Amino acid sequence: MAAQEAAIGDSEFYEARRAFQPTVPECLQNLKTLQFEGSEPSACVGNSAELNAIFENLFGQPNLEITRAPKEVEMRPLKVGVVLSGGPAAGGHNVICGLYDALMEIHTESSLIGFQRGPRGLFENNYMVLTGDYVDQYRNTGGFDMIGTGRDKIENEEQLQGSLNTVLEHDLDGLFIIGGDDSNTNACVVGEYFAQNNCRTCLIGIPKTIDGDLQNNEIEISFGFNTATRIYSEMVSNICRDSCSAVKAWHFIKLMGRDASHVTLETALQTQPNIALISEDVKNSRKMLSDIVDEIADCICRRSALNKNYGVVLVPEGLLQFIPSFSSLIEELNHFLALGSEHLEQAEAFDVMEDKIAYIRSLLDHTHGATFDLLPVEIQREMINERDPHGNVQVSRIPTELLLIRCVEKELKIRKASGKYNGKFSAHGHFFGYDGRCGYPTNFDCQYCYNLGRVGCLLALHGKSGYMARVYNLAESPENWSAGAVALTSMMNMEKRHGKMKPVIKKALVNVEDSSEFLYFQSVRDNWSDEDNYRYPGPIQFFGPASICNQPPKIIACRKLFNEQ
Amino acid sequence: MAAQEAAIGDSEFYEARRAFQPTVPECLQNLKTLQFEGSEPSACVGNSAELNAIFENLFGQPNLEITRAPKEVEMRPLKVGVVLSGGPAAGGHNVICGLYDALMEIHTESSLIGFQRGPRGLFENNYMVLTGDYVDQYRNTGGFDMIGTGRDKIENEEQLQGSLNTVLEHDLDGLFIIGGDDSNTNACVVGEYFAQNNCRTCLIGIPKTIDGDLQNNEIEISFGFNTATRIYSEMVSNICRDSCSAVKAWHFIKLMGRDASHVTLETALQTQPNIALISEDVKNSRKMLSDIVDEIADCICRRSALNKNYGVVLVPEGLLQFIPSFSSLIEELNHFLALGSEHLEQAEAFDVMEDKIAYIRSLLDHTHGATFDLLPVEIQREMINERDPHGNVQVSRIPTELLLIRCVEKELKIRKASGKYNGKFSAHGHFFGYDGRCGYPTNFDCQYCYNLGRVGCLLALHGKSGYMARVYNLAESPENWSAGAVALTSMMNMEKRHGKMKPVIKKALVNVEDSSEFLYFQSVRDNWSDEDNYRYPGPIQFFGPASICNQPPKIIACRKLFNEQ
Repeated sequence: MAAQEAAIGDSEFYEARRAFQPTVPECLQNLKTLQFEGSEPSACVGNSAELNAIFENLFGQPNLEITRAPKEVEMRPLKVGVVLSGGPAAGGHNVICGLYDALMEIHTESSLIGFQRGPRGLFENNYMVLTGDYVDQYRNTGGFDMIGTGRDKIENEEQLQGSLNTVLEHDLDGLFIIGGDDSNTNACVVGEYFAQNNCRTCLIGIPKTIDGDLQNNEIEISFGFNTATRIYSEMVSNICRDSCSAVKAWHFIKLMGRDASHVTLETALQTQPNIALISEDVKNSRKMLSDIVDEIADCICRRSALNKNYGVVLVPEGLLQFIPSFSSLIEELNHFLALGSEHLEQAEAFDVMEDKIAYIRSLLDHTHGATFDLLPVEIQREMINERDPHGNVQVSRIPTELLLIRCVEKELKIRKASGKYNGKFSAHGHFFGYDGRCGYPTNFDCQYCYNLGRVGCLLALHGKSGYMARVYNLAESPENWSAGAVALTSMMNMEKRHGKMKPVIKKALVNVEDSSEFLYFQSVRDNWSDEDNYRYPGPIQFFGPASICNQPPKIIACRKLFNEQ
Repeated sequence: MAAQEAAIGDSEFYEARRAFQPTVPECLQNLKTLQFEGSEPSACVGNSAELNAIFENLFGQPNLEITRAPKEVEMRPLKVGVVLSGGPAAGGHNVICGLYDALMEIHTESSLIGFQRGPRGLFENNYMVLTGDYVDQYRNTGGFDMIGTGRDKIENEEQLQGSLNTVLEHDLDGLFIIGGDDSNTNACVVGEYFAQNNCRTCLIGIPKTIDGDLQNNEIEISFGFNTATRIYSEMVSNICRDSCSAVKAWHFIKLMGRDASHVTLETALQTQPNIALISEDVKNSRKMLSDIVDEIADCICRRSALNKNYGVVLVPEGLLQFIPSFSSLIEELNHFLALGSEHLEQAEAFDVMEDKIAYIRSLLDHTHGATFDLLPVEIQREMINERDPHGNVQVSRIPTELLLIRCVEKELKIRKASGKYNGKFSAHGHFFGYDGRCGYPTNFDCQYCYNLGRVGCLLALHGKSGYMARVYNLAESPENWSAGAVALTSMMNMEKRHGKMKPVIKKALVNVEDSSEFLYFQSVRDNWSDEDNYRYPGPIQFFGPASICNQPPKIIACRKLFNEQ
């Protein structure tokens, strides 16, 4: 069977992908002629005094541009380490490939090591040497399996000291932390610790997260967002087409993204579904759960009148927490059900679940009671039964897409009884999340990541610590992209975490007031609700014309279009 | 905003796909020089006497090959109608495009009409004329939205008479029914009715279904299967990569396919997950639910010992109905809970759900009781509460992937208590189904369907009724494919449906005794369980080398490889 296994098990596609050579923009070619420029101290998002005190060495460093140096830089072998942190995102391998190639360009005696399974690999010095042969296997592939990832933080003294020992033992010129907002905040903490201990290793952050909530004026988008949203868009558009082909079902599709709705917005722009809820918009307009249910039911009724008993609704994973009335219901429930509360004791005394629910319902005030009554019984039951170890309702475990389906069903039943609706409502729930984090990266993410790795290497060469690699002008074709670096502290402010004020890189929410992408969405979404204006972007393509294969995210294309007006 | 909408809303990809020209195999070029050949009366799967009586006119027609005619056939304008039936599958539009182009090749005055929203469109004469401009919009696109589909049958006299009236009114030469096994059986019934009423319209069946259960010696695969399984394979392999990147979760992935596990088998060959359950294999080896749970738990324990607390399990949608002990449990439950039974009355008397469940549990015999005890409480509750209008347990509504997760959790808790396992088990459930039916068809499905339409057109030209279009040798490259037609009755036997014996096209299950694809899978699956041998086939590609873009299904490639030995 060996011959068959080889024939069936191989993947020509994988070989073809490995052979893809990412474009290096003009401004990043020939590393030995490049330098960083910038002198204006950087500001921060807020709390500069506190941040200055915490980051004595790294606070306020100037943001940097890459320019051509007046004379060639002296090249020496570099030794760099790399850590993958948090949930996987497509393109991580290419950051490492770009870094590796840049290291070799700088000096063939440079070396690269990968710390395994995330930050823990760093402070426990669990590493592997990344050779050319090994790196080659992962070119342009998805996943973080090259060295693994993990969710540990480097926070306490032991972990910080462990990390310092590791980089000293390896005598590293640079250490890459590839991660999201938290991991990059953590990178800055580690970098500051190194500086305070006179360790020369430069801490370099790389902006990763499929959620897209690590973005700002300097960082146009985090890597992995484009691939994930293209994968979701393929699936969503397939379902849109199914919906208007089979003409008999509504599909409620939840998309990953707890803290922000960038993923849902991008997927909506790609696929043009009948309804796309944006959490930030819901919060901004102070909508209640009942408002959302009504709006969906209205759309279903209008479409039913057109003989269209089908449609597609996109739901961001974090929606419930953005509904003010829902959040405060949860707060009240957490109060009544707190460990040790007398109400909890009373509730637990009921043998029958229905009685327990009724008792808790009786405690709620008028508004919260109304919100609670909207919920289907199985959700009420789960909220009350399945609380976390602190006794809190686990909002993130509520299946939001099913909750909406049940609420809409209830509402339609009422409308049917009163003769306002006589359609058929049948609905399916979907969740796309894990399936979008590890696909083969789009050409966009391949090239973006490869060049982020390249910029990071240059930061290590020039001894710049506490920076995030920056590649921008991403709406242009890759040869025209620009590059530089952003001081990590410039993206920070202080926020309360677990009851304590902490420095954090500010999370980017969808700006519903004046971002081009949201304003565009707002101006066209009504055209999608009653008419079928579904858009079918197709699966990610790698071998066709650049105009098809190299597309940047729609939200970036939107910004460019609006800026050009 | 109009300019932006155009710029953002357009899809260059769609335009590029529309321009794709499917390959016509050598044997199907130049229609006017082609003829059908065949004289040997065809047999059937079983019950030939009964089938002969039902299909007086159509039974036993010879299967046909397409050959070059000694002289050119006289070409005349044809008028053909087309119906899409049942769930959508990628490639349906291309059957119609292939038919349209063939009609135009035969005579530019030919015409094509589409009956809307399935068979109902036929017997209610709800149709649209399919012009070249209209057809062009749908070339190489997914979905059935060109004319819509529906699940009506043409069964009673009124429906049959309505269909006859429609084809007589339009004076059709041919009528295409594009559907699965049931729809093609129905096509034969309609064809026989037409023949009995001296109507000249030829009934032509086209083999559609993403499940792959319409296949046999003549029909290598139904269309839509390749696209659906490639879409599922992309998602499954993304999750495999996520699993070995994040190294912290097991994923239980249910795949569409209630009656057969071809989809799961193909997806397993494409992605090489740690475990792939095949329903037919489970039934054949008379496995109990507890055996399956044990096998999964064993694999989890072995992998955990290797520090791999992650993995991927594929689950065919129809699994539970193939577990003999589970099926008989359901039968017993249906017996006790039948409408009007005294047990049901007793059960309903309990106020508390837990008591009701305990009462029903007490009725079960020893073996069924043990199976019932394996199930998580929420599934027990759902089985008993949510029965269909006849009082039967709705097996198809049980979330099989979640059921397995809960059962495995229970089993691992027991093993942990006895010190046999000390890993961490965290699991996510997924279901891929609707998302695979309406994707852009693979080149394979584009070309297969286009040529099925072409063969069908030739059947209409030559007045052949009661046939299914056949394109075969699909493991070869498309220019070398062969073509012919299969008598619909040759695929039939009699089976009990709703208590009555009916003629049906025999559903193809996975042949676990001697099919190349299953034997191959069986010989290699152990290599996938403890080692990570995931395969990442990537998203469907359209613009690359033919070896990447034109791949046939793995199950077809397997058969070819084994035949060549």
